[in-house]
Amino acid sequence: MSPTTPSFESRLLTTASSVEALLGELLSSGCLPGEIARPQRLLDAMRHGALNGGKRIRPFLLVESTALFGGNAGAALRVGCALECLHSYSLVHDDLPAMDDDDLRRGKPTVHIAYDEATAILAGDSLLTYAFDVIAAPETALSDRARIELVLALARAAGIGGMAGGQALDLAAEKQAPDEAGIVLLQSMKTGALLRFACEAGAIISEAPAEERDRLRRFGEVIGRAFQLADDLLDLTSDAATLGKAAGKDAARGKGTLVALKGQEWAEAELDRLVAEAESLIGPYGEKAETLIEAARFIANRKH
Amino acid sequence: MSPTTPSFESRLLTTASSVEALLGELLSSGCLPGEIARPQRLLDAMRHGALNGGKRIRPFLLVESTALFGGNAGAALRVGCALECLHSYSLVHDDLPAMDDDDLRRGKPTVHIAYDEATAILAGDSLLTYAFDVIAAPETALSDRARIELVLALARAAGIGGMAGGQALDLAAEKQAPDEAGIVLLQSMKTGALLRFACEAGAIISEAPAEERDRLRRFGEVIGRAFQLADDLLDLTSDAATLGKAAGKDAARGKGTLVALKGQEWAEAELDRLVAEAESLIGPYGEKAETLIEAARFIANRKH
Repeated sequence: MSPTTPSFESRLLTTASSVEALLGELLSSGCLPGEIARPQRLLDAMRHGALNGGKRIRPFLLVESTALFGGNAGAALRVGCALECLHSYSLVHDDLPAMDDDDLRRGKPTVHIAYDEATAILAGDSLLTYAFDVIAAPETALSDRARIELVLALARAAGIGGMAGGQALDLAAEKQAPDEAGIVLLQSMKTGALLRFACEAGAIISEAPAEERDRLRRFGEVIGRAFQLADDLLDLTSDAATLGKAAGKDAARGKGTLVALKGQEWAEAELDRLVAEAESLIGPYGEKAETLIEAARFIANRKH
Repeated sequence: MSPTTPSFESRLLTTASSVEALLGELLSSGCLPGEIARPQRLLDAMRHGALNGGKRIRPFLLVESTALFGGNAGAALRVGCALECLHSYSLVHDDLPAMDDDDLRRGKPTVHIAYDEATAILAGDSLLTYAFDVIAAPETALSDRARIELVLALARAAGIGGMAGGQALDLAAEKQAPDEAGIVLLQSMKTGALLRFACEAGAIISEAPAEERDRLRRFGEVIGRAFQLADDLLDLTSDAATLGKAAGKDAARGKGTLVALKGQEWAEAELDRLVAEAESLIGPYGEKAETLIEAARFIANRKH
């Protein structure tokens, strides 16, 4: 696998900084039409959870998959921020004492540590709700059809049939280790569904034909598998300082991963295979697909 | 105030039973397109939280406000179920140990007691997410415009600027009792926003002109104030057996209510005034408004 080029890294940083700036605006204290008030402490907790200087991989995939079809870049950035609100909610709730009980996230206290448990629950609820607000708002200058399809696809990716269901399976896995099929199912729901949405959303925003949407969806599925495999490898090999969170935690909890089950060598070969599959899926788009292909490599090779 | 007529009661029961039946279908184990799997235990917890034999006042208001304009009754029932998913999520999360710490709801164990805390958090998250799914789904046979406006109005009513923000203010009120303006703000957000949405949604579903939508919105605000005042009176005067939950809890926590601040006599006169205001707002619709006016009386006079 070739190393990622500087221009890719800078593109990633540029999108991350645009996301950070727009999220900051979206989570400011001014009320939108129909809102009654934005209680300051709850808003601060939402900002703590969402404005965390992350790499913003999901919005990046969303923005670049929109660019693939020449879709509305401003709308893609807004939908990317909605997706990041939703992703942030999942982290805030996953960190709660009743869930994964984590005190640190990216080297900072988690929301329930910095505030309190009730506020963390409500901040997560509000970020989740706000994700749908941001997509549906008229400022997301897309057709009604595109916005309603984004709402539906995001709800399906995030709910019981996707991410939240995956977290439920993950909690169950602590009591009874799943077999290989169980791990694949869990991961496709918990991590895969949102990454798949990120890629599919570009086709929805651009109102691309159904077969293009399906292709981006499959690309997103492959990206999701690569992301999770790289994550599991990192969890095995990193220390807390590199990761910014407790390392080796999955192994300590006895959670099965494909890496634990099939070994590091298999995982590295599988990552190569997944990157090749991703390339073959969007290779037909030619030059326009280069950034997304680099994103696939970046996700497979990332060291933190 | 005249007593509610039997035909009103039977209409209320009919809608409640239609809501219960459709919610049961919506929360069945079959996957929808785009869903990967529905983990059974999480689904059971969602059903426990949502299929609770409640009066379904919110869907009733939504269905009847749609009927006022002759809008699509089937779509109204689906949107009513979405609203009830959202209302149920708020109850599941409010009952959590970190929030109101309630073990009983309608005489049954709350979700975190019947299952566990993590499952209750995820069941609430999934019900919230599903509310937007149900509205956005093509089965809600409305125009894209109507569906996107429903998503937006519901998100604004439910998020930081509405219900979730109101719950944050409610938690803060336990530490420092709010003044009258603070209580009014808290209640308009925590309880009022969803009831307002229920009434406004009828105009959105029916694609009624902006001034009709505004009128229903104001009707919903009045209904919201009456609902909360009746609730506070009930909390003061009922016992747990009538209420199906711990009674006098708000008073015990020192939470301010308008009843505590201004007295029972004032509250009863204010309820009469609110019902009259509700009548004057939708009286112009004539006979078609009768059920909604009876609903206002029912909400103001309810004994449980």
